[in-house]
Amino acid sequence: MSNQSARIYFDNAATTSLDPVVLEAMMPYFTDKFGNPSSIYSYGRESRLAIETARKTVAKILNAHPAEIFFTSGGTESSNTAITAAIRDLGCRHIITSPIEHHATSHTVEHVFHSGEAALSEVKLLPNGHVDMEDLERLLANSSEKCLVTLMHANNEIGNMLDLHAVGNLCKMYGAIFHSDTVQTVGHFPFDLRNTPVHFITGAGHKFHGPKGVGILYINENVKIKPYIHGGAQERNMRAGTENLYGIVGFAKALELATAQFEEHSSYIKGLKIYMMEKVKSVVRGVTFNGDTLGRSLYTVLSVSFPKTEKSEMILFNLDMNNICVSGGSACTSGADQGSHVIRAINNNPNQVTVRFSFSKHNTKEEIDFVVEKLKEMI
Amino acid sequence: MSNQSARIYFDNAATTSLDPVVLEAMMPYFTDKFGNPSSIYSYGRESRLAIETARKTVAKILNAHPAEIFFTSGGTESSNTAITAAIRDLGCRHIITSPIEHHATSHTVEHVFHSGEAALSEVKLLPNGHVDMEDLERLLANSSEKCLVTLMHANNEIGNMLDLHAVGNLCKMYGAIFHSDTVQTVGHFPFDLRNTPVHFITGAGHKFHGPKGVGILYINENVKIKPYIHGGAQERNMRAGTENLYGIVGFAKALELATAQFEEHSSYIKGLKIYMMEKVKSVVRGVTFNGDTLGRSLYTVLSVSFPKTEKSEMILFNLDMNNICVSGGSACTSGADQGSHVIRAINNNPNQVTVRFSFSKHNTKEEIDFVVEKLKEMI
Repeated sequence: MSNQSARIYFDNAATTSLDPVVLEAMMPYFTDKFGNPSSIYSYGRESRLAIETARKTVAKILNAHPAEIFFTSGGTESSNTAITAAIRDLGCRHIITSPIEHHATSHTVEHVFHSGEAALSEVKLLPNGHVDMEDLERLLANSSEKCLVTLMHANNEIGNMLDLHAVGNLCKMYGAIFHSDTVQTVGHFPFDLRNTPVHFITGAGHKFHGPKGVGILYINENVKIKPYIHGGAQERNMRAGTENLYGIVGFAKALELATAQFEEHSSYIKGLKIYMMEKVKSVVRGVTFNGDTLGRSLYTVLSVSFPKTEKSEMILFNLDMNNICVSGGSACTSGADQGSHVIRAINNNPNQVTVRFSFSKHNTKEEIDFVVEKLKEMI
Repeated sequence: MSNQSARIYFDNAATTSLDPVVLEAMMPYFTDKFGNPSSIYSYGRESRLAIETARKTVAKILNAHPAEIFFTSGGTESSNTAITAAIRDLGCRHIITSPIEHHATSHTVEHVFHSGEAALSEVKLLPNGHVDMEDLERLLANSSEKCLVTLMHANNEIGNMLDLHAVGNLCKMYGAIFHSDTVQTVGHFPFDLRNTPVHFITGAGHKFHGPKGVGILYINENVKIKPYIHGGAQERNMRAGTENLYGIVGFAKALELATAQFEEHSSYIKGLKIYMMEKVKSVVRGVTFNGDTLGRSLYTVLSVSFPKTEKSEMILFNLDMNNICVSGGSACTSGADQGSHVIRAINNNPNQVTVRFSFSKHNTKEEIDFVVEKLKEMI
């Protein structure tokens, strides 16, 4: 995409474009195959079959049992369900979380805390933004109540990745329930849930070229919870409401494509991230990168802090004027103008302006060259 | 559709087919316009604009303020939100409902009741299935606690319609909050919410030729509640999670089409219902109709009870074998094989077999002739 009047989209952590192959898989359900999946006659059965086939596909890719996969309206609903159920149904009275969780987790946790249903602790972070595992173990060891640990797999703003096994094993040792917001990693990394000590993980179709408005909640077969949304018997009595049939079909197809092309795309996108990092460093003085950028980190996300100047404060505005799409932080918080709670938590430097660049398979080095050139002009 | 090998779809109360014009309106958001509506740059703004335009369209049609319309994942989530909030945020400690509500209401109410958050009363029904208004007033007058009245606008199995104004005025008189599940009527009847004494109503796109997986919750501007799904700032902090952009655009377009064609389609569909009623009466001895079929009733739904015989017990199966799609009750309960709680509540006759026929603008008298001919053969 070297046509400089076209848009450059570097905000793939907010949402990705829908893959045309995914749309094609969804189309029959927008037209002929419109039956309600709960109906017992032919039209219903073919819709039901599509959903159960999608469930099997997702389960197989994540190495889970189909009975552990539940379709929801998205990652946010999935996290609300898991956190609420851990308190209500699994006896957790103490939540351990971090200051850099997505609002889908942090606001749910705050709601539960303010209603008096659980105590709340925040684990310390290391300077590079990773969870301080010693502090986590201290919190677990000192808790007199059963704990829910809710820590995201990959941070959506700085890209830092949690070691699911290490945290899960700690949780196991102390009898804690472990929920991980994996919205940025499902569809971007291989999962082997049968061999991962986690009780709940989440996914959202639109983060990996699938549709918006659909997600999954993985519920480990060893935990039994009640639904969050009550009503009909859909999703084996676990999530009521007529299913988003097209969304579910699209979620599975997108996950299938992402998995088939994982090696190729992840190394290509990682190359873009490193290329951008080096380019930016070479043209902007005093630039820093947030998180463990070259270590345990999403290959899709690059968080850059520029020294604050009159010019750099206008950077998001000016990039937008040049048809370059990036964000200051999470899309889910960009309505509010309070800056990023993630950046504040790891790097409380008021003299910086932070921009998140996030890449997909559709981006190119030529786009990066163009963007860096513009950054140079702007700053 | 006189081709007898084609399917005949008489289960439009379960779900309707998506209107191709609606799909066309959704398509740009599946392709080019994929931005996250919360993103502040160009791609985001065009998605945001689509959502806010949809909200205005829906609000205008229902004669509500745009700030009173919230998009959700469907009618079930909407009812969960309203009922939970009435207890949690509005001080209601006593729920008055009926034995013939949809499970989206009844199971949510039971959940709240079993958690000890509210008392529960069921209003009596008249023999024709309508709410006994005197009993409702007695319940309201005798309640020492603030009440939530949750009664559906039109019953999805027998079609009976509630007088929203009469119930709403009673609620007003006794300081009660009024929630009505209007999933079967939004898109099928005109609404004038500015002049209707109701606090919460719900809608689901797929009931009126819109998409599955999207709905609305109307929250009257005079009540202030907290969200049910916590997280990002979407829907003005009332419903977190990346929006189902296509679904929202499709919901509004479907409502627009339904409203433009209301006079024509409602009288056409009502004609089908009456035609079927008369035809069935003329060929099957001992047949009865459930609810206030020719009175205050959905024009879309005809609930027929056949005398129970070895043959009539196989009727759903045999209709399906003939490619005729009908249901025994609500699709949301058809997974469970316990019969219909609605039919049991109004007509507890074990010697009957009940079938719901529900019609749309796509059905024809020829289809009815064919179905009645088949019924005659089967019974």
